[in-house]
Amino acid sequence: MLREAVFHVAHGSYAYPVADDTLRLTLRTARGDMQKVTVLYEDRYQGSEPRTAVMEVAAEDEMFSFYQADIRLETKRFRYVFLLDDGVHEAFYTEKGFFDDVVPHTQFHYPYIAVRDLWAPPKWAQGAVVYQIFPERFANGDPQNDPANVEDWDAIPTVTSQKGGDLQGIMDRFDHLVDLGVDVIYLTPIFEAPSNHKYDTVDYYSIDPHFGDEATVRELIEIAHAHGIKIVFDAVFNHSGYGFFAFQDVLDKGEESPYAHWFNIDSFPVETDPPNYETFANQIATMPKLMTGQEDVREYFLDVGTYWVREFGIDGWRLDVANEIDHQFWREFRQAVKGENPETLIVGELWHEASEWVRGDQFDSVMNYSLQYACFDFFAQGTIRARSFANRLAKVQMNYTQSVNLAMFNLLGSHDTERFLTSCGGDADKFALAVAFQLTYEGAPMIYYGDEVGMVGRNDPDCRRGMIWDPKEQDLELLGWYKSLIALRREHPVLRFGQCRTVWADSASNIFGFVRFDQERQVLVLLNNQGKTQRIDLTKVVWPVAVPKQVQDLLTKETFALGEIVIKPYGSRILG
Amino acid sequence: MLREAVFHVAHGSYAYPVADDTLRLTLRTARGDMQKVTVLYEDRYQGSEPRTAVMEVAAEDEMFSFYQADIRLETKRFRYVFLLDDGVHEAFYTEKGFFDDVVPHTQFHYPYIAVRDLWAPPKWAQGAVVYQIFPERFANGDPQNDPANVEDWDAIPTVTSQKGGDLQGIMDRFDHLVDLGVDVIYLTPIFEAPSNHKYDTVDYYSIDPHFGDEATVRELIEIAHAHGIKIVFDAVFNHSGYGFFAFQDVLDKGEESPYAHWFNIDSFPVETDPPNYETFANQIATMPKLMTGQEDVREYFLDVGTYWVREFGIDGWRLDVANEIDHQFWREFRQAVKGENPETLIVGELWHEASEWVRGDQFDSVMNYSLQYACFDFFAQGTIRARSFANRLAKVQMNYTQSVNLAMFNLLGSHDTERFLTSCGGDADKFALAVAFQLTYEGAPMIYYGDEVGMVGRNDPDCRRGMIWDPKEQDLELLGWYKSLIALRREHPVLRFGQCRTVWADSASNIFGFVRFDQERQVLVLLNNQGKTQRIDLTKVVWPVAVPKQVQDLLTKETFALGEIVIKPYGSRILG
Repeated sequence: MLREAVFHVAHGSYAYPVADDTLRLTLRTARGDMQKVTVLYEDRYQGSEPRTAVMEVAAEDEMFSFYQADIRLETKRFRYVFLLDDGVHEAFYTEKGFFDDVVPHTQFHYPYIAVRDLWAPPKWAQGAVVYQIFPERFANGDPQNDPANVEDWDAIPTVTSQKGGDLQGIMDRFDHLVDLGVDVIYLTPIFEAPSNHKYDTVDYYSIDPHFGDEATVRELIEIAHAHGIKIVFDAVFNHSGYGFFAFQDVLDKGEESPYAHWFNIDSFPVETDPPNYETFANQIATMPKLMTGQEDVREYFLDVGTYWVREFGIDGWRLDVANEIDHQFWREFRQAVKGENPETLIVGELWHEASEWVRGDQFDSVMNYSLQYACFDFFAQGTIRARSFANRLAKVQMNYTQSVNLAMFNLLGSHDTERFLTSCGGDADKFALAVAFQLTYEGAPMIYYGDEVGMVGRNDPDCRRGMIWDPKEQDLELLGWYKSLIALRREHPVLRFGQCRTVWADSASNIFGFVRFDQERQVLVLLNNQGKTQRIDLTKVVWPVAVPKQVQDLLTKETFALGEIVIKPYGSRILG
Repeated sequence: MLREAVFHVAHGSYAYPVADDTLRLTLRTARGDMQKVTVLYEDRYQGSEPRTAVMEVAAEDEMFSFYQADIRLETKRFRYVFLLDDGVHEAFYTEKGFFDDVVPHTQFHYPYIAVRDLWAPPKWAQGAVVYQIFPERFANGDPQNDPANVEDWDAIPTVTSQKGGDLQGIMDRFDHLVDLGVDVIYLTPIFEAPSNHKYDTVDYYSIDPHFGDEATVRELIEIAHAHGIKIVFDAVFNHSGYGFFAFQDVLDKGEESPYAHWFNIDSFPVETDPPNYETFANQIATMPKLMTGQEDVREYFLDVGTYWVREFGIDGWRLDVANEIDHQFWREFRQAVKGENPETLIVGELWHEASEWVRGDQFDSVMNYSLQYACFDFFAQGTIRARSFANRLAKVQMNYTQSVNLAMFNLLGSHDTERFLTSCGGDADKFALAVAFQLTYEGAPMIYYGDEVGMVGRNDPDCRRGMIWDPKEQDLELLGWYKSLIALRREHPVLRFGQCRTVWADSASNIFGFVRFDQERQVLVLLNNQGKTQRIDLTKVVWPVAVPKQVQDLLTKETFALGEIVIKPYGSRILG
């Protein structure tokens, strides 16, 4: 028994409530080290004969097995220890280490399931299909509001290109979104700003005049809501644009400005080349960093956050550079925004491990770049094989609670990455396979505008080309593939809300498979990430990772009884 | 290299700021597994040639070594990987696992040190000597306000005893506290309540008439503050007393009461025997659990929390049954109370692992029962030896950030435990040894009233006897021991604020030693937990746990050059 590998803490993704009297526990051990893991649990005050629950493997990565069990106590006050059995030795694992027996005062405690600690992202966001629009490049609906020097829509964009896309364009093309079947539109920033990407906000209370105005945005939101589609805006509170009134005031009045403390300025007068003030990233003079620790800055941006929810009914915020703003600001932001509407979604931009932000006090979920990297390596580049891919996914999945995982923005690409089809070397089959994964796996799949019609592009600015609207230029087969998968997802709630476990991760064949399941339904997804047809004898399946016995039985009876199935090169099969 | 043992996360006690540009990192490995651990770090945006810092062992428990390093970047934006070297193999440990080389997008990120994330408990509480008073049993200063049926002060108390102790008594005996040298007085509840312990509050806005009134409490606080002593009250917000106006209203009006939702009542009418409502622990009818998730309940108790800070100038709150109230309540409580006075201390009652509550959003520290258990086992019962004791301390120390450790209420006993001298079987030498540890170790030592004069008592109610005031009954030698150690602590700020590392944990001799150090000063504390005189050849010290090279050098030169020292049975030596 490898004791050093065993890990549990009574919080975060290792212990969280899934109902007002039920706790989900996760225990980590060395991979394959245990024959049986049992949790012994009891009320914190009524301890006598503890109840027991046998834990099952929920996921495995390259080093660890993750055991899970849901335990229930009417009194909601838990203490517990784990009994580990590797076939030779048994040991009790407790908060205070390992013991041969149950020793008093050593148990883990989850003291009480309080109603307000039983949090989850809004249900509408869990498993929803999200469509990301970069408005300047989606559609030009109103040439009247175009900026000067608009370039040809189809020209390869530069960093400073303007193409005239706007909110009217989104409305004009709304049928495309409805036909595709998206649940949520996430718009990159639309507030007044000089750049084409508008991450350099000048006025947080105004729609950029090249995009539209208050009336246009109200109409867009109305249309979306009429179709049952939610709208998420982009909040850029880490830094403002150069033209933001407060920064202009500081440029103007220097130290005397009442906004001088809104920024971190080394000395006065303010210099801009190079900047003598703190900025986004390194010395980007047009993006002065905002001091969100200051009370009036906080008040200003909390008001921005609530204003668009209250006055315009937007459904959520995606938070730009969310990890460089203090945690306390986000706690207050959540309080304020959820105070306006508890169903508002809050998604942080984080590219790294994000558990500190999704504990219930800050974000509902994050942009799932960890999954994006795994897909890039497995589907696009082929630098990792099925087992590694499964390991990478397991690490992400076990890092968050289930409801957070369901609301993760699972992206293949964004305005900040190369287009995924380009990463695939233009191979439509590889791309389609990744899409099949994205649209059936646990989380909220986020489609970057144009991916669905086969758009390509290297990193920014190339990934921000004008949307292809000419059907002759669109990959209609791919578009059909997206539609059919989204339709399948809509038809089967298990693909939105079901649990998700890897059941197949074989590096020799490079076949990866997982199952989505709930009480009523099981769906098995098999992905052949190899350039040759493969035959799988389903009757001989060995469960590489355990799934609950009842699901195994059903799959064996209903799905695996199909016998041998064939999967074409880079093909997928969805069974269930 | 035991990879499964290696652990780091970029938050909590594993990564936290210690200055506005400096991050403290901790990496866990299997104990003694590594020859060298290095951290490679760089700015998140300017990555080129990373800087390096060699990490040193800060603590070790039975299975793990904990390496630490402070890393500094002017830009405050960190990404980093660890390079592990076990003498045979090298490996990079990253957020995404182990690699042979530095691989892009795998680093850990601590994205930015924001001012408000650089939090710490109030400086006055760090390392302070705390004195816990159970007012009903400390001193009877005003017999006029005694409850009926007051029993003899020296009689062994029962669960329902009343002895007449009050706030005037504390004032009358204030010289004792001043002579002892305490920095903080923590009073168990003093609000109006029928019981002797007053954890069944009837009125959160009134002082119990048997204890005094508003004027008395103001006078007590004034006297304390005049002596530079802080006052901490006890907040019982998990449950109210039976006589609390809101519960009485529900008893009276049932479902129609506007306070019906303040409690969790199964059905109406309310029954009390057995209670048909949720209570503290199990079916304690006199302590109905409060629904702090309800907005008006929250508002009421947030007002209680701020009222005593604002109107009476109390310095802190100790939170009863803190772990059974929702985290969000405590976040709001912290905001409200620190809003009144940012120097207010917030200490939770938790008997178990508490990291979830001391992340900067809820408590400053907790009652350190994990340390209490370790002291009980090592000093009092002798059931563990020096190495196990060191292991247990290391686990606690590494679980929290340093400033939290400095503010931990390090208790040997409380109103909820057996008296520590009793746990020692009345052995004054063993007890004095534990006191030497408590008063020199990292944290805020909490003295339970009367321990300093040799009071004994089994668990509640016996541990709540009337304070011994007759000098003939007091153990004056012990009292002198307390005074001398507290005086030493006052004289040497290193004993309050210095870092703390175990340097000696030898189970054969059962000698335990640790060093407190800062830039200027080193103090070595050696404790002989054995009933025989022992000689230590200081010149031959082998550092069982590494301390910084400069501290080693100084200790070797100044302290260990003393040569052989002698420690008497259950004796201690403080050198430096």
